[in-house]
Amino acid sequence: MGKQLKVSIIGSGNWGSAIARVIGQNVQQHSDLFDPTVRMWVFQEQIDGRNLTDIINQQHENVKYLPGIKLSPNIVAEPDVKKAAEGANILVFVLPHQFVYQTCGSLKEVIDADCRGITLIKGLDFRDENIMLFSDEISKLLGIECAALSGANIATEVAEEKYGEATIGTKYPDTDGAVFKKLFHTPYFNISVIEDYTGLQICGALKNVVAIAAGVCDGLKYGNNTRAAVIRRGLLEMRKFGKTFFGGVRTETFFQSCGVADLITTCSGGRNRRVAEAFIHSDKSIEEIEKELLNGQKLQGTTTALEVHRFLVTRNMTEEFPLMTAVYRVIYERAPPECIVEYLTY
Amino acid sequence: MGKQLKVSIIGSGNWGSAIARVIGQNVQQHSDLFDPTVRMWVFQEQIDGRNLTDIINQQHENVKYLPGIKLSPNIVAEPDVKKAAEGANILVFVLPHQFVYQTCGSLKEVIDADCRGITLIKGLDFRDENIMLFSDEISKLLGIECAALSGANIATEVAEEKYGEATIGTKYPDTDGAVFKKLFHTPYFNISVIEDYTGLQICGALKNVVAIAAGVCDGLKYGNNTRAAVIRRGLLEMRKFGKTFFGGVRTETFFQSCGVADLITTCSGGRNRRVAEAFIHSDKSIEEIEKELLNGQKLQGTTTALEVHRFLVTRNMTEEFPLMTAVYRVIYERAPPECIVEYLTY
Repeated sequence: MGKQLKVSIIGSGNWGSAIARVIGQNVQQHSDLFDPTVRMWVFQEQIDGRNLTDIINQQHENVKYLPGIKLSPNIVAEPDVKKAAEGANILVFVLPHQFVYQTCGSLKEVIDADCRGITLIKGLDFRDENIMLFSDEISKLLGIECAALSGANIATEVAEEKYGEATIGTKYPDTDGAVFKKLFHTPYFNISVIEDYTGLQICGALKNVVAIAAGVCDGLKYGNNTRAAVIRRGLLEMRKFGKTFFGGVRTETFFQSCGVADLITTCSGGRNRRVAEAFIHSDKSIEEIEKELLNGQKLQGTTTALEVHRFLVTRNMTEEFPLMTAVYRVIYERAPPECIVEYLTY
Repeated sequence: MGKQLKVSIIGSGNWGSAIARVIGQNVQQHSDLFDPTVRMWVFQEQIDGRNLTDIINQQHENVKYLPGIKLSPNIVAEPDVKKAAEGANILVFVLPHQFVYQTCGSLKEVIDADCRGITLIKGLDFRDENIMLFSDEISKLLGIECAALSGANIATEVAEEKYGEATIGTKYPDTDGAVFKKLFHTPYFNISVIEDYTGLQICGALKNVVAIAAGVCDGLKYGNNTRAAVIRRGLLEMRKFGKTFFGGVRTETFFQSCGVADLITTCSGGRNRRVAEAFIHSDKSIEEIEKELLNGQKLQGTTTALEVHRFLVTRNMTEEFPLMTAVYRVIYERAPPECIVEYLTY
């Protein structure tokens, strides 16, 4: 690459802001490699009559999505996505997945082919009964290479510099991977680079479905043995899903932060678990429960469960993934929550 | 084997009594294969002036170690270990590991060579700077084949028929494994049989060391990302330990109940975790803390950490197992608890 690489962050939510803080530190640390100014695309909102971008650029704090945490001043908020990305050598995608297509559509004309992308979006893209990885979609939409980052990362803890790990998956670990490692690795945020960007993204999506199953177990007061069994079965189904429907998925990926570590964290504390626990004691639909508990935000685990189920139905393979299927049935067909475990008892 | 197999259980503590309940059900279920009477060796104690064996045989309850749970009447408590084992075709070892040698010494003369053993003892046997598996030790001491069972099994939950899983490791999965599966498998206690009895027993011992590390993280309020990272590193060191020092250890074993599932359970709720959390906020030695919190019972994780450390020192390999080494240093050298994570931050 040669010259200083310009980095742009596309997205500025809770995780986007936390990772902007890491990136802001690292570009200064590696000023030989990176341009010290990092643009961050912020979807413009008004906070007490002020633009969110102005607040970020003046107070160096995303008061809406990561309050109480200072970003370094070299993170520059920009409301126009094209201006935020124009001339960038590295694009960090960290936005809600429903905005990917539209955003890439806007970016297409300002992005060079030798730009590199990396997606921090957790989820898979289900379209026309197929599953696509967001790294592949971004790649196709923009005509650039795209890697992915995932791990056991609660955003606030990363922002508070509590120790954690993450995994980067890229086709080119020695070249692109080395650059991305410099962009994300810090003593408190430990990055490993692997080639299996596919398994990494599958873990990031399907762990949320397993967390719903864990939440159902908690709601039923099933105890530690059951919970551990369900999480383990979930891990096996995540791997089987990857190996069945995608090439290049490796068992080692599940030993990475993006695998077993992220699964453990998500099943312990995440909101998928919490909403599922509330859901089974209620007559309300999952949408209503989500509205009550999450201010109308959608739960990734439930929509993923629905989409995985549709995908498996068209392939006549629901029985091969009994945990994923049970989660779908409990949430969308109102099957008795006990069915989360029943298929295991033979 | 042909005739009905006689089963004896050597041990009757909390886990021994819970598994006796499972076995008592299964020998009746498979009466073609097993003799319906199961002898259980009980170390004799007086409870309110009565023999514990009499209480068990009259009330069908181990009031001391598994109170409130009924055993089936076909479980017969026997205070004489030779009488308990004589003529048995299957011996189930579920006793504190410090009693294995003495007990096998007594059993030697009453056991036939075609008897089969299975050990439920969690731990490794460290002798003369070497590590032995209890299955191998029992095999040698009695001149019989010996398998092993391990899993994410809190005894009380198994006794209450809450769903759980366990793994059996045996050199002969198709023959001995099939018989053991009939002896232990129920709809609420799901057994998988694998060949890697070595990896299975390593997991059962080393998970306790990892749980201490998780407890230290909790004591330091390190958050979910750190905890997940430490558990993941622990899992990797468990595997590396097995693959470095033993033959036949397979990665798949770590996906079994004896692997990742047991590790998750132990790091969530177990007493290793709890004692470690208390230890780092105290000036007392680990022995004093154990005495206070566990009525003087020894913690498996701490002694295992000590023995693993001695083993690694003689091989000059402490640096290759930084998590195991950090646990030893925190507990026995009073190193700052922060060193549980420090080696990870580079």
